[in-house]
Amino acid sequence: MSAAEMSGVFAPVVTPFRDDLTPDHDRLIAFSRWLLTQNCGLAVFGTNSEANSLSVDERIDLLERLTDAGIDAGRMMPGTGCCAIPDTVRLSSKAAELGCGGVLMLPPFYYKGISDDGLYAAFAEVIERVGDASLNIYLYHIPPIAQVPIPLAVIERLLKDYPDTVRGVKDSSGDWSNSLAMLEAFPGFRVFVGSEAFLLANMRNGGVGCISAIANVHPAGIDALYRGWQEDGADAQQEELNRVRQTMQRYDMIPALKAVVSRASGDAGWAQVRPPLMALDEAARAALFDDLDGIGFSLGYDPAA
Amino acid sequence: MSAAEMSGVFAPVVTPFRDDLTPDHDRLIAFSRWLLTQNCGLAVFGTNSEANSLSVDERIDLLERLTDAGIDAGRMMPGTGCCAIPDTVRLSSKAAELGCGGVLMLPPFYYKGISDDGLYAAFAEVIERVGDASLNIYLYHIPPIAQVPIPLAVIERLLKDYPDTVRGVKDSSGDWSNSLAMLEAFPGFRVFVGSEAFLLANMRNGGVGCISAIANVHPAGIDALYRGWQEDGADAQQEELNRVRQTMQRYDMIPALKAVVSRASGDAGWAQVRPPLMALDEAARAALFDDLDGIGFSLGYDPAA
Repeated sequence: MSAAEMSGVFAPVVTPFRDDLTPDHDRLIAFSRWLLTQNCGLAVFGTNSEANSLSVDERIDLLERLTDAGIDAGRMMPGTGCCAIPDTVRLSSKAAELGCGGVLMLPPFYYKGISDDGLYAAFAEVIERVGDASLNIYLYHIPPIAQVPIPLAVIERLLKDYPDTVRGVKDSSGDWSNSLAMLEAFPGFRVFVGSEAFLLANMRNGGVGCISAIANVHPAGIDALYRGWQEDGADAQQEELNRVRQTMQRYDMIPALKAVVSRASGDAGWAQVRPPLMALDEAARAALFDDLDGIGFSLGYDPAA
Repeated sequence: MSAAEMSGVFAPVVTPFRDDLTPDHDRLIAFSRWLLTQNCGLAVFGTNSEANSLSVDERIDLLERLTDAGIDAGRMMPGTGCCAIPDTVRLSSKAAELGCGGVLMLPPFYYKGISDDGLYAAFAEVIERVGDASLNIYLYHIPPIAQVPIPLAVIERLLKDYPDTVRGVKDSSGDWSNSLAMLEAFPGFRVFVGSEAFLLANMRNGGVGCISAIANVHPAGIDALYRGWQEDGADAQQEELNRVRQTMQRYDMIPALKAVVSRASGDAGWAQVRPPLMALDEAARAALFDDLDGIGFSLGYDPAA
């Protein structure tokens, strides 16, 4: 599988912090290794990675430490989209240089209501400045958080002008009709849905997988549906995945993911988040664990294994 | 006037770019000098400065060049709020070290729907890490763009814990009732409105001035109302200011400001913006100039003077 043909299940890998809020590369490397054993690709520096709470220098340092540790860069799709073009260029260049299979690129997200021309110009400027044929971009459409959508008209223009660089999308709109519209409009465009709730629908319509928060804690289950979507029982598998997701969604997602990793690993430090996020309080943590126990779900991550 | 007592009219100074999109410090220094001659303070790196399209390194470089050029740091209130705490700390520390009268601090703006506790923790963490008694923070409340408001409950807590650091606010909510609520709730808290449309109301209710996009092109007119708000004719002055503002607001504000500076200075390069923004096209530029001519408004900026 060439880098341009990434597919399957990816986790926006949660980023562990030490007590002083510095990123903890050792914990990140161990957790990333485990995710790979579950057939789960590494979309480090996604929304659920608290990437936008990390400086560019911190992200570059983590990326180098991951690859230095022997983590397969071909299975990595780091988030590289920042508000400022020079930052996006630095991160994307570093990812390409390290051999990352792809990058997941947010639009510049501070200014709202920007024009299609301006959005196109921002992505085009980044591509031209990186100037690296090994750069494979997956556009990151997440209007609920970025508040800056990536319209189909902009994707069409980018695909026309940069067909060997713009490879696909992560659609985190939560709007399946938007994913379907992209699948229908752009043959060969690699559509990852941003939630495993749409994984089966995506696979049945020509999509290539999903990049989902929940893949941090349920990678094997999601991967089983990805691999078995054409088999009997796929609909039941999808429903089972939905049950886990709905339970997690009752809580603040990022602190909830970290609480689950913290419990599984017996490592209280894993629960640490950076402000403006806050860790779950004791009551929410207990309720989350009760809810997960109630549906018979547990994460089997052992960092010592 | 001590740094803690900033007041008057400030411009979020528009940032000039060269053809290759690098920030042009010479043009910025010249324009900043001129604004100071108009009694206009320098809120460099505001929303209208395209600050979020600049890397932290670019902002630090510009700040150093401004002060190296002899621009009075005491009249500067640079924007320093980023999504990531380490970035906000670096910029705020540099501003304090250079003697800036204040800093204008956005909340971390990527994650939406964050809790009051999380927002408080983000600001508190920055203050503790900067650890500089000369840091004077003006909170930047701009929900229409940041999409992360700074609620009164958070301000109250910050004022209680950091009364010698948290000095005031720029309220760009566009909601006068919010400005008034802050004026009433926090005696001594320095409220700048984010639009000169509310300048007279703000002064009549204990506010200290405004920080407005339009101050880039109409500084003396706005300053005249700031100084003369208790005189006869203040209401008429406010209406005159509103007329200029309403004309500018028919166009994309940042490119429109730059078009006006470009025309006044006879320097076509001033019209350059960074993507995702786009310069006004020829038709919009001509229409803007016609509209401004129609109300008898012109900017008298001559960089050679």
